[in-house]
Amino acid sequence: MRMYDIIMNKRNGNELSKQEIEFFVKGVTDGSIPDYQTSALLMAIYFNGMTDIETATLTSSMAQSGDMVDLSSIEGIKVDKHSTGGVGDKTTLVIAPIVAACGVKVAKMSGRGLGHTGGTVDKLESIPSFQTALDREHFFRVVNETGLSVIGQSGNLAPADKKLYALRDVTATVESIPLIAASIMSKKIAAGSDCILLDVKTGSGAFMKTLDDSIALAQAMVAIGENVGRHTIALITDMDIPLGHAIGNSLEVIESVETLKGNGPKDLTEVCIQLATNMLYLAKKGSMEECKAMVLKVMQDGSALERLKAMVKAQGGDACVIEDCNNFEKAPYSHEVKAQKSGYITHMDTEKCGISSVILGAGRETKESDIDFTAGIILKAKYGDSVQQGDVIATMYSSDQSKFQSAEELFQKAITICDEKPKQEQLIYARIEKDKVERF
Amino acid sequence: MRMYDIIMNKRNGNELSKQEIEFFVKGVTDGSIPDYQTSALLMAIYFNGMTDIETATLTSSMAQSGDMVDLSSIEGIKVDKHSTGGVGDKTTLVIAPIVAACGVKVAKMSGRGLGHTGGTVDKLESIPSFQTALDREHFFRVVNETGLSVIGQSGNLAPADKKLYALRDVTATVESIPLIAASIMSKKIAAGSDCILLDVKTGSGAFMKTLDDSIALAQAMVAIGENVGRHTIALITDMDIPLGHAIGNSLEVIESVETLKGNGPKDLTEVCIQLATNMLYLAKKGSMEECKAMVLKVMQDGSALERLKAMVKAQGGDACVIEDCNNFEKAPYSHEVKAQKSGYITHMDTEKCGISSVILGAGRETKESDIDFTAGIILKAKYGDSVQQGDVIATMYSSDQSKFQSAEELFQKAITICDEKPKQEQLIYARIEKDKVERF
Repeated sequence: MRMYDIIMNKRNGNELSKQEIEFFVKGVTDGSIPDYQTSALLMAIYFNGMTDIETATLTSSMAQSGDMVDLSSIEGIKVDKHSTGGVGDKTTLVIAPIVAACGVKVAKMSGRGLGHTGGTVDKLESIPSFQTALDREHFFRVVNETGLSVIGQSGNLAPADKKLYALRDVTATVESIPLIAASIMSKKIAAGSDCILLDVKTGSGAFMKTLDDSIALAQAMVAIGENVGRHTIALITDMDIPLGHAIGNSLEVIESVETLKGNGPKDLTEVCIQLATNMLYLAKKGSMEECKAMVLKVMQDGSALERLKAMVKAQGGDACVIEDCNNFEKAPYSHEVKAQKSGYITHMDTEKCGISSVILGAGRETKESDIDFTAGIILKAKYGDSVQQGDVIATMYSSDQSKFQSAEELFQKAITICDEKPKQEQLIYARIEKDKVERF
Repeated sequence: MRMYDIIMNKRNGNELSKQEIEFFVKGVTDGSIPDYQTSALLMAIYFNGMTDIETATLTSSMAQSGDMVDLSSIEGIKVDKHSTGGVGDKTTLVIAPIVAACGVKVAKMSGRGLGHTGGTVDKLESIPSFQTALDREHFFRVVNETGLSVIGQSGNLAPADKKLYALRDVTATVESIPLIAASIMSKKIAAGSDCILLDVKTGSGAFMKTLDDSIALAQAMVAIGENVGRHTIALITDMDIPLGHAIGNSLEVIESVETLKGNGPKDLTEVCIQLATNMLYLAKKGSMEECKAMVLKVMQDGSALERLKAMVKAQGGDACVIEDCNNFEKAPYSHEVKAQKSGYITHMDTEKCGISSVILGAGRETKESDIDFTAGIILKAKYGDSVQQGDVIATMYSSDQSKFQSAEELFQKAITICDEKPKQEQLIYARIEKDKVERF
């Protein structure tokens, strides 16, 4: 078999065989295929796409290119969740404890912040002493003891994906639905859970800016899951507006705790309830109605919050910050952002809001940057709200006072204020299960 | 400027600017752009094409990436000729002396055999002691003294093209008309002639198998020539059948000498007259009719053949083989190929005929192979001829008797014999000058 023929086949619009895809992934992993051939194939895939079968084969091969986590020592159906990333997206911190409190084990590997989007691992590390790098045995013990554990991704999970992603990133071949779908799903499949809930974000702060693209990506991922025997459901949720009011690491942990207590922002609470309900449904805990009732119960009776505390303790973290969020370290400096005119907030460019938070120190400007866990933004007004000129619409936090000016400049650009009240925001646009797309 | 943005621009179907193309070619030449980015761009060009302006800019940049030959020390209009390659294509050996005999200087760099097609430099080297590697000064002196010189391509002619071609060859991005056109024309432009005649072959033995593709390639090259100020004409000539009767190096030199004497095969003679006429026309020697009359005259009066002899002598070759072709060394072995049935020859797969000749030793199996200058095939029957079963349809020559079996097997596969007489072959399909396509 020759890589040349594989490139030519795809270039000519043919379906690649299982053998061809496996040859390619093996060659990428062991370095026997040169990058210049790989990038030519990636560009041909960008133009000619891949069938569902090709995409599933690519995903399986990439998953098997490294460690395949074996979760069989953890009892019951294990459900994983993946978000395509957004601004203020702290849902994992809310729903993993909810699902665990309902008796479904969550053994989850999460990522760090990337670009303008935050990462669950960074957020958890804002809890003093919290460990996100557990060995396999420790990870399983925490799951078995507390019902859940969230750790960073292991070094050798889907190494083929790591190499392909690095190459796509410099050859303008990132924006290909089969390649994005295979990249995400290969890591989820290698991570070992039985079922996968996908939270595909859509809108100005999402990787996929349009609803059609988001649905297409979700369908591609659900098809992969079904093709490789992992029951997969996708929700398309809004990221045209930051989720909740808090952007930034410890700020988001605090908001998550409030949400578990029932005091969270309406949008975040609603999205978390929907996601958690679908995770329980995937774990066969009952009908959608029954699952939703279980979610509401563990939020009301405090058992979900208890699970979060238990996990924090089991991973070495200082649970006193969860018990009383006032114990979190505060940023030394804060800065109020005021409305420049009166009217309704009709648009929030969510990517710009995210970058503004990165400027304050909540994300990494380069791969090597340290994160300022206390930095970020609390939104005081959001899409649809009526504001008067001079009203405080956000408070910024940072350890570096000099950052406020450029962060505010960008943030102001992100906010559009108009006279007319905009239509109500929609939180959940669609749900995809098997080949069924249910639009809301 | 970033290569990433250039790839994305082309991927998105935009026209690249002059600055972007020059940045790309400079980066390829100096190695600052990694191959994996270059191959991604090449694949994007394969899919999205290039405008005439982009193609001309790419060509100029590639031409200027190395030596630009300055032919100004040679008097008059210099006309170059390029063939896209074929089997039995010895036209350079015939028309360069004709054109020189008509007073137009030919300073030509030629290539070696590639795949199933022969190369003029290899053919010339079958003349004992003939030198194809002359330094610039010696080259110019031969042209000034004899009216023509044909040498091998200099090492640093369009190095960007050399790098790009090597990469295209392993990334399935060869078959792109703008890239093929730019590759050919960059070398022709760097080689310094004022005008260029293109002989674009079409058919089973050509790089371009269909007439439409051949015309499209010719149009792209003519457009480049006009865009960079080199008057360029293209003829589309037949390569669905080998040209002439001889395939193989010294065999083809012998056939060329016979053609200059007026004893050549009809098809080769006719194509050479047309090509030479167009070269004289490009050199502004008169109308097409006047140019054709000049061509016929120098063939009849022997002055064209004298030019060939003069060039052979001036480049150190033993002209006695031109004076009497019996002086050429003969292959130690020959083998007769017989018709397997009676009927008309209705098809000759010309690529297979070429490969059969390579098997006999006339071409290189690998880049390092030596050529057997005496090896090859003399066709005794061609397309349209009526043959009886057992008639000799070809004679094969080789220094290695063991090659005849596999060479004949392939050759027999190349020949189709049917009951019905096929329609007459066409030698010249079209002529392209500026934006005018004249079909015949």
